[in-house]
Amino acid sequence: MLPGVGVFGTGSTARVLVPLLQAEGFEVHALWGQSEEEAGGLAKELGIPFHTSRSDDVLLHPNVHLVCIYIPPPMTRQIAVNALGIGKNVVCEKAATAVDSFKMVTAARYYPQLLSIVGNTLRFLPAFVAMRRLLMEGYVGEVQVCDVRVYGPSLLDRSYGWTCEELMGGGGLHTIGSTIIDLLSHLIGSRAHRVHGLLRTFLQQSGSICGIRRVTSDDFCFFQMLMGESGSGAGSGGVCCTVTLNFNMPGAFTHEVMVVGSAGRLVARGTELYGQRNGRDGEELLLGDSGWVGPEVPDMPPPHLRGLSSMVTALRHSFQAHDERRSWAREPVAMAPTFEDGLYVQTVVEAVKRSSRSGEWECVEVMTQEPDPNHNLCEALQRNKN
Amino acid sequence: MLPGVGVFGTGSTARVLVPLLQAEGFEVHALWGQSEEEAGGLAKELGIPFHTSRSDDVLLHPNVHLVCIYIPPPMTRQIAVNALGIGKNVVCEKAATAVDSFKMVTAARYYPQLLSIVGNTLRFLPAFVAMRRLLMEGYVGEVQVCDVRVYGPSLLDRSYGWTCEELMGGGGLHTIGSTIIDLLSHLIGSRAHRVHGLLRTFLQQSGSICGIRRVTSDDFCFFQMLMGESGSGAGSGGVCCTVTLNFNMPGAFTHEVMVVGSAGRLVARGTELYGQRNGRDGEELLLGDSGWVGPEVPDMPPPHLRGLSSMVTALRHSFQAHDERRSWAREPVAMAPTFEDGLYVQTVVEAVKRSSRSGEWECVEVMTQEPDPNHNLCEALQRNKN
Repeated sequence: MLPGVGVFGTGSTARVLVPLLQAEGFEVHALWGQSEEEAGGLAKELGIPFHTSRSDDVLLHPNVHLVCIYIPPPMTRQIAVNALGIGKNVVCEKAATAVDSFKMVTAARYYPQLLSIVGNTLRFLPAFVAMRRLLMEGYVGEVQVCDVRVYGPSLLDRSYGWTCEELMGGGGLHTIGSTIIDLLSHLIGSRAHRVHGLLRTFLQQSGSICGIRRVTSDDFCFFQMLMGESGSGAGSGGVCCTVTLNFNMPGAFTHEVMVVGSAGRLVARGTELYGQRNGRDGEELLLGDSGWVGPEVPDMPPPHLRGLSSMVTALRHSFQAHDERRSWAREPVAMAPTFEDGLYVQTVVEAVKRSSRSGEWECVEVMTQEPDPNHNLCEALQRNKN
Repeated sequence: MLPGVGVFGTGSTARVLVPLLQAEGFEVHALWGQSEEEAGGLAKELGIPFHTSRSDDVLLHPNVHLVCIYIPPPMTRQIAVNALGIGKNVVCEKAATAVDSFKMVTAARYYPQLLSIVGNTLRFLPAFVAMRRLLMEGYVGEVQVCDVRVYGPSLLDRSYGWTCEELMGGGGLHTIGSTIIDLLSHLIGSRAHRVHGLLRTFLQQSGSICGIRRVTSDDFCFFQMLMGESGSGAGSGGVCCTVTLNFNMPGAFTHEVMVVGSAGRLVARGTELYGQRNGRDGEELLLGDSGWVGPEVPDMPPPHLRGLSSMVTALRHSFQAHDERRSWAREPVAMAPTFEDGLYVQTVVEAVKRSSRSGEWECVEVMTQEPDPNHNLCEALQRNKN
């Protein structure tokens, strides 16, 4: 039986998520927004019976057993941890920092019987499901290079807000780059150990963002990740990933993920998958666009939108497997990113930002314990002692 | 009147260059090859009356006033410098090292009345001629990002030779990357001041390259160049260029050069030029493929081949402007890369290689005097003195 759903957020993702949930048979009982007006307006539009701007009203709602959190990154950790704490299943967007992600991991480990997945939806896109299967079957041989580019219009909200602020989780790297980092580790089956990158903010002010306000989040970013063979330096084996993100290109999104290996290559362009084996003439279409009947969302790349739709279907399968409203089966959502994956992704994002400042390759070291707020003090004392 | 031509080289470029010269009305009088057999075979095939394996026989040939040098990079410097020294006009490929390039610059400066251009042909491709004009006219607004990718089949010769050796000027960066470095400085009108890169050799051995022999030249390379605002660090203004080269992709070449600015973008795909201004729907075709009637060369990207053809036409215009066989007009070849440009390109190539070893951003410092071979010794003495 499907659980009742509470949705946090009134942005473009929440706006498209609710109809997708409803179409799969989920009942959305409650909606949270930052203001009563925002929540009320969208609840009315989407036919949600209850709305609020107080998070506990959704978390404690008796009919809500699955909480979907699509809100500004700095608020995600608190809602997600609280939701797990009172026994609700959680699907959420990434947090703003690695420390926040680590706190979410701790909560998820504490409640292993609850569903806790990061709503990164690219893994669920049929093109990437097929790509992963073909990679495992050896279509490209030994993987050498992943080459990803996402180009599109500005990711900034019209008015000043978190999307403009690097420290609040705004910017192309955090918003879109993180989904690519997650996808590549899922496709390749290994993680980045060293990264290098450069971030830029070409558009620092606009008509509505002016005066003393300045955009600090990146609208252009390229980064490289070295994966596999973790002991090796920049010059030796393993997989090289290069990712170019550019959100100074109004018009349709370009979303291309290419994996090149010793025996061929696979390329996902938008939601379609192409392949070419070495020695064959030309590319073959491996998975076409099956025809999207849902809504188009101007500020969301089509692969994200359709991946979201596939994830909601997977959620239905997961919950339908059991009679009890809160229970879920692991298998249909087994490919979803866990909170541990979310922590890894956030760690890479922060390493890329560090690299952009230092100009150097930076190691990816996933946090294993929460940093002591007195850490710097302790270190200073330690140095004095020796 | 067109000068008689002597051609050095029997590789794929020389093989396609001779018919292009002949089609424009140039008489090719002499051909040099590394062995008598190679030279004799190709001379017969292409209808060249004289062939030799001794370079002086071409340089001193009384009917030769223009020398075209398309030979392995380590041999280029000597032939080019000698040719200028005995009063011949020179079109040549890049040298193997910055020191060699510097010696060529010195010779070219010494004989300013002689033509001395680097046969980098992308600048002459009509798509790039149009792109440069549109950039100067402000089509894209302020240039922010250049994004280049060249994918194609292996650049290695079938048997072991210079193409396999990094130190002899083999590899994707030196062979193809250098043409992109030159093109971007020509398009943008400024030079790289800092670069970062990573080179890899995925295919180290093959059927014919085995045993103790190993390929050391790169078959995969990505690099970034920061151009303009030369005083600035990695985090501030100027133009960011990212270049990805991958020659582990059998099949047709992909050759894409994109320039993104504040008001729109221009993309050359192969030999065609597309553009999109911000606010307009979709791309417009700005320059189509005019239909190539010449030969196809499997190991040369089509933009290089057609650029070569346009360069030969420009050479004809340059020499036709005067009655005397040795005289030439500057204007038709004004856009050609000079030997100074060749030195800059080689300096960038070496900085990218240094960056791949160090993992750090490297400065591009173009040599202004020939390095003293006792330099290291002097430095050591200096250190001891202080």
